[in-house]
Amino acid sequence: MISFESDYTTGAHPAILQRLIETNLESQSGYGNDIYSAQAREYIRAACECPGADVRFLVGGTQTNATVIAMTLRPYEGVISATTGHIAAHEAGAVECTGHKVLTVPGHEGKICADELMTYLETFYADGSHDHMVQPGMVYISHPTEYGTLYSLSELEAIASVCRDYRLPLFMDGARLGYGLASLSTDVTLPDIARLCDVFYIGGTKVGALCGEAVVFTKGNTPPCFVSQIKQHGALLAKGRLTGIQFEVLFRDGLYFEISRHAIRMAEKLKALLLRKGYRLFLDSPTNQQFVIVPNEVLASWQDKLAVSFWEKYDENHTVVRFATSWSTTEEQLAALEAIL
Amino acid sequence: MISFESDYTTGAHPAILQRLIETNLESQSGYGNDIYSAQAREYIRAACECPGADVRFLVGGTQTNATVIAMTLRPYEGVISATTGHIAAHEAGAVECTGHKVLTVPGHEGKICADELMTYLETFYADGSHDHMVQPGMVYISHPTEYGTLYSLSELEAIASVCRDYRLPLFMDGARLGYGLASLSTDVTLPDIARLCDVFYIGGTKVGALCGEAVVFTKGNTPPCFVSQIKQHGALLAKGRLTGIQFEVLFRDGLYFEISRHAIRMAEKLKALLLRKGYRLFLDSPTNQQFVIVPNEVLASWQDKLAVSFWEKYDENHTVVRFATSWSTTEEQLAALEAIL
Amino acid sequence: MISFESDYTTGAHPAILQRLIETNLESQSGYGNDIYSAQAREYIRAACECPGADVRFLVGGTQTNATVIAMTLRPYEGVISATTGHIAAHEAGAVECTGHKVLTVPGHEGKICADELMTYLETFYADGSHDHMVQPGMVYISHPTEYGTLYSLSELEAIASVCRDYRLPLFMDGARLGYGLASLSTDVTLPDIARLCDVFYIGGTKVGALCGEAVVFTKGNTPPCFVSQIKQHGALLAKGRLTGIQFEVLFRDGLYFEISRHAIRMAEKLKALLLRKGYRLFLDSPTNQQFVIVPNEVLASWQDKLAVSFWEKYDENHTVVRFATSWSTTEEQLAALEAIL
Amino acid sequence: MISFESDYTTGAHPAILQRLIETNLESQSGYGNDIYSAQAREYIRAACECPGADVRFLVGGTQTNATVIAMTLRPYEGVISATTGHIAAHEAGAVECTGHKVLTVPGHEGKICADELMTYLETFYADGSHDHMVQPGMVYISHPTEYGTLYSLSELEAIASVCRDYRLPLFMDGARLGYGLASLSTDVTLPDIARLCDVFYIGGTKVGALCGEAVVFTKGNTPPCFVSQIKQHGALLAKGRLTGIQFEVLFRDGLYFEISRHAIRMAEKLKALLLRKGYRLFLDSPTNQQFVIVPNEVLASWQDKLAVSFWEKYDENHTVVRFATSWSTTEEQLAALEAIL
Repeated sequence: MISFESDYTTGAHPAILQRLIETNLESQSGYGNDIYSAQAREYIRAACECPGADVRFLVGGTQTNATVIAMTLRPYEGVISATTGHIAAHEAGAVECTGHKVLTVPGHEGKICADELMTYLETFYADGSHDHMVQPGMVYISHPTEYGTLYSLSELEAIASVCRDYRLPLFMDGARLGYGLASLSTDVTLPDIARLCDVFYIGGTKVGALCGEAVVFTKGNTPPCFVSQIKQHGALLAKGRLTGIQFEVLFRDGLYFEISRHAIRMAEKLKALLLRKGYRLFLDSPTNQQFVIVPNEVLASWQDKLAVSFWEKYDENHTVVRFATSWSTTEEQLAALEAIL
Repeated sequence: MISFESDYTTGAHPAILQRLIETNLESQSGYGNDIYSAQAREYIRAACECPGADVRFLVGGTQTNATVIAMTLRPYEGVISATTGHIAAHEAGAVECTGHKVLTVPGHEGKICADELMTYLETFYADGSHDHMVQPGMVYISHPTEYGTLYSLSELEAIASVCRDYRLPLFMDGARLGYGLASLSTDVTLPDIARLCDVFYIGGTKVGALCGEAVVFTKGNTPPCFVSQIKQHGALLAKGRLTGIQFEVLFRDGLYFEISRHAIRMAEKLKALLLRKGYRLFLDSPTNQQFVIVPNEVLASWQDKLAVSFWEKYDENHTVVRFATSWSTTEEQLAALEAIL
Repeated sequence: MISFESDYTTGAHPAILQRLIETNLESQSGYGNDIYSAQAREYIRAACECPGADVRFLVGGTQTNATVIAMTLRPYEGVISATTGHIAAHEAGAVECTGHKVLTVPGHEGKICADELMTYLETFYADGSHDHMVQPGMVYISHPTEYGTLYSLSELEAIASVCRDYRLPLFMDGARLGYGLASLSTDVTLPDIARLCDVFYIGGTKVGALCGEAVVFTKGNTPPCFVSQIKQHGALLAKGRLTGIQFEVLFRDGLYFEISRHAIRMAEKLKALLLRKGYRLFLDSPTNQQFVIVPNEVLASWQDKLAVSFWEKYDENHTVVRFATSWSTTEEQLAALEAIL
Repeated sequence: MISFESDYTTGAHPAILQRLIETNLESQSGYGNDIYSAQAREYIRAACECPGADVRFLVGGTQTNATVIAMTLRPYEGVISATTGHIAAHEAGAVECTGHKVLTVPGHEGKICADELMTYLETFYADGSHDHMVQPGMVYISHPTEYGTLYSLSELEAIASVCRDYRLPLFMDGARLGYGLASLSTDVTLPDIARLCDVFYIGGTKVGALCGEAVVFTKGNTPPCFVSQIKQHGALLAKGRLTGIQFEVLFRDGLYFEISRHAIRMAEKLKALLLRKGYRLFLDSPTNQQFVIVPNEVLASWQDKLAVSFWEKYDENHTVVRFATSWSTTEEQLAALEAIL
């Protein structure tokens, strides 16, 4: 049985485990006040070319989305997202659970479009009064999106420009950010993101860590009483060293980028293999997630040999499935896949 | 510099790290559907002598308290706690953040008393109508308490009996449960707890794990749509293996109990040492946390040599500090402490 | 200046004011325990031909929607509504403020369609797991809708049937229910509604009362600790007599239906007048709200003579406006309108 | 049967009903944009001698408390109240329902004490870190308190001074404010309150209105998007004229003060009568609520003749009951009471 089910089926990059062992018996203060978290913050600020950035570590993606959004919005504000955005569709209502509405604009293969965002905002403010409506207070995008797609630099700049015009903070969910930055077809860099977004996070869980997301506040906009607020949301880790050490390892010598590039190389080979074998792509993803249209009887034949993720029904006879590569995908796994296909 | 600051200043028991390495490249399903989580559940059910128990893994204590309480209470209900209970005093309002009130009864060195609980409930229901008050919906206790104290079996049975009479689920916060079970002066066993509580958790973070709490629902009372609910609270770990593997190691061969006993041995030696050196105890704790009254000038002299936790001001010239031992406390550290004292 | 701006611009039906005066000095218990509330409950049960119904009085529509929904849903559930539903679009996020998501299906002139509802539910439950999504827990419809349109009996039965199949309570927002029941083209009666809905409310504020909505739970499904829950939401009126007396007057001798029929007669005349004068309807509403496409220069000319509600921009040169009649609309006002047009 | 059960058992002052009738058919904009609300705001600003005050009308006391507090606090803040404060004890958890904790200081016959407030705040901020605690964000007092007692001007100034030192807004619940201002033994005026409090409300429901509380923001501190926020909390009245007209009548010519003085005169006579008849007072209340210790057999004998409120059990043989007078209490009722006693 080989698995391309997701990018979180294996453990952590071995360098992380090695570092956990090396540092294990050192006594470190809790709640993020350890030297590894401090060091990781430094490395990430440098990688972002944003010396004034504030970097905080949370445990998982949904937790990060919900707490960052709740800490940023005023009670009467909502967050704008693509209808297919993770917060809108796949987080079990975590944002609403904090009392805020997710306002939606159309998603185009997972992406929102600056023009449609502007139209939404113009329409909202055009009517004299909007007292009975939820006021937009933040814009949420994901990069890569839930469909593996990426914003181009100009698309991102256009969205950021609309956000600035309407004084809305721009928040990027980067649960798979490494795979976006390592894509062969992106022109967006980490410093670009730090420049254009007010807050974003660098996903660890899906890019080589056991858990952990590094949230970067780029504009002096860390929410007040941050520790208190994440404690309140159950998002404060007692042993903050766990996330600190992992990001220290990932960003000390560029490991985060290196393993992301590896996953992209594997994804490109995977895509080529699938196309060579006659499979149709559901959409053309430039990152580590590949969405493929598979005849149902073929899918059934994979049952005990190959694990992939069900995505959606395509038609009566076909299903869209997702193949994901990661830092741990090997040439051997690709060879085994080829044998099965 | 040696540290007795808390029981979460070091990493994880080496056997846990070893196991993370061994299993690292295996592909396992996410969200708790890995074989290690399944195995750990089995081990814990056995240790609890409660074959029907449902065991779930969350990341940290505050998160566990808030989500278990929110999932159990009806919207108009509150949870009863000692005024000094962790949820009442030191979780930044995490329970209230979910919309529920913490109702308080007096704390006696951290413990609530069955009689006072009964009086509270009798008074509440005595008035014909209590429509304008928050209805009690759960009782929260911690064992050990925030002051390191323990309930005796008869105290626990008395509380459980009141809870049964009023049909209130009894919830035990066991963030340091291991140290309570290993205490030299306890008559309470893990099966007792499973029998008397409706839900409790076995703390990992403070007893040898990097993170993780094992929540045990003992009476077929797992909240419906559990995964959905913890996802909503940001408490669902993508790589559920991380908590699964840790509890599998801790409960496979009794490691959890063994390291807890070690911490208690160290705490007893520490206490004896402090008393020998003429220090007064703030209260007599039978577990791994020792609360000591220290003259302020002595405390100042420790500054760069010895880390302890500030607990509270005792009088103008004295401070109460906490010494905590853990699985990782060594004889060498005690010797070094003796030299300092 | 004459006003067709809304159906809540005047006070209350004179019979209500008269009754407030007659009963003013009587001493009555608070919080809904007065004899007028009891009497009103009886009258409403009779009008609904639902002797087992439980009837409760709240103050306003948004309050009623948010509290009924919050009391009915489990924490992990959302409420299904048309995208144009009042709770989805025009209540400032009141439902989300209670922690619940509004799940949307398409609106067709304000109405949802049983087939699309069924497709939504089939799709939701088709995927093996939906742990990461908000589970549907209730269906919300409004009758008349926000566009003045009405469900036919067969449409309503089809929706109720889907709800039963999926065990979802059906909730009808009847803020303008009287005008719906009095429409010349409806085949839906109040007993039909009581039979098909699990909970609905009979709007008072917009149908002759100063304030007040009568919520009817038809299936023994009053939420537990109801008074406590509405108190918690700030929806419990100390002088419950205020709503009790109003509904007692409205339902004692059929006044509610009589004044609704009057408003409909006025609306039909208004519609005929507008058509006669060459105006185009935006949609064909059978109730007291008429949506009309008006050239912008005509609209400007009305400024100081005629008040209507802005609804939406139609095109560069036209605007959709709403004319509303009510119990207090007079022939004189229609004559004055004719003069202006 | 005569009733001294509460101050909300009768309807509204006749002048209010008269005014509702006079204005009934006028067309007025909704949501507080009517001319009566505007006029009432002017009158109240004048009565407060606070020309810059912002005045808003809500429906009831619990609703006002919960929405004002939720609009003022940041998410990580709580509100300080006496343990006996209405928000702490008798609002069914309405504040917690908005996500905020009620922090308590001791109540002395319902009042908090400036010194104890200062000690609470000093202690809170004394510890270096309070990240794990709920930060105080507002101080709540009621005047008269739940026990009918009143702050003296110097007590109020002392509390306001502590609030200013800690930059905490001071919020006064004035559900019975009229009766406090009319007390024979108060030295506190409405302008004093406007000067010392950041926000307070002038209760209508219990002082002659059918419903309604006038919230006064005195320091340019109206919460942003106020209408949107109260809409979100279900507290926006469509027919805002209902509260506007009532407060217009109450404050046009001093009716509010006049009827409050009447209630106090009745309360003083009631108190004298009770003392004359040998009853003991539970505490000495200078306002319209009188708390009296009554032998249980006497209480039983009143059953069908005299309605009072149960307050609390005093001892095995005695009960504390509340007698309340109001604007509608008559000499005849006092005479009837005397006959019964």
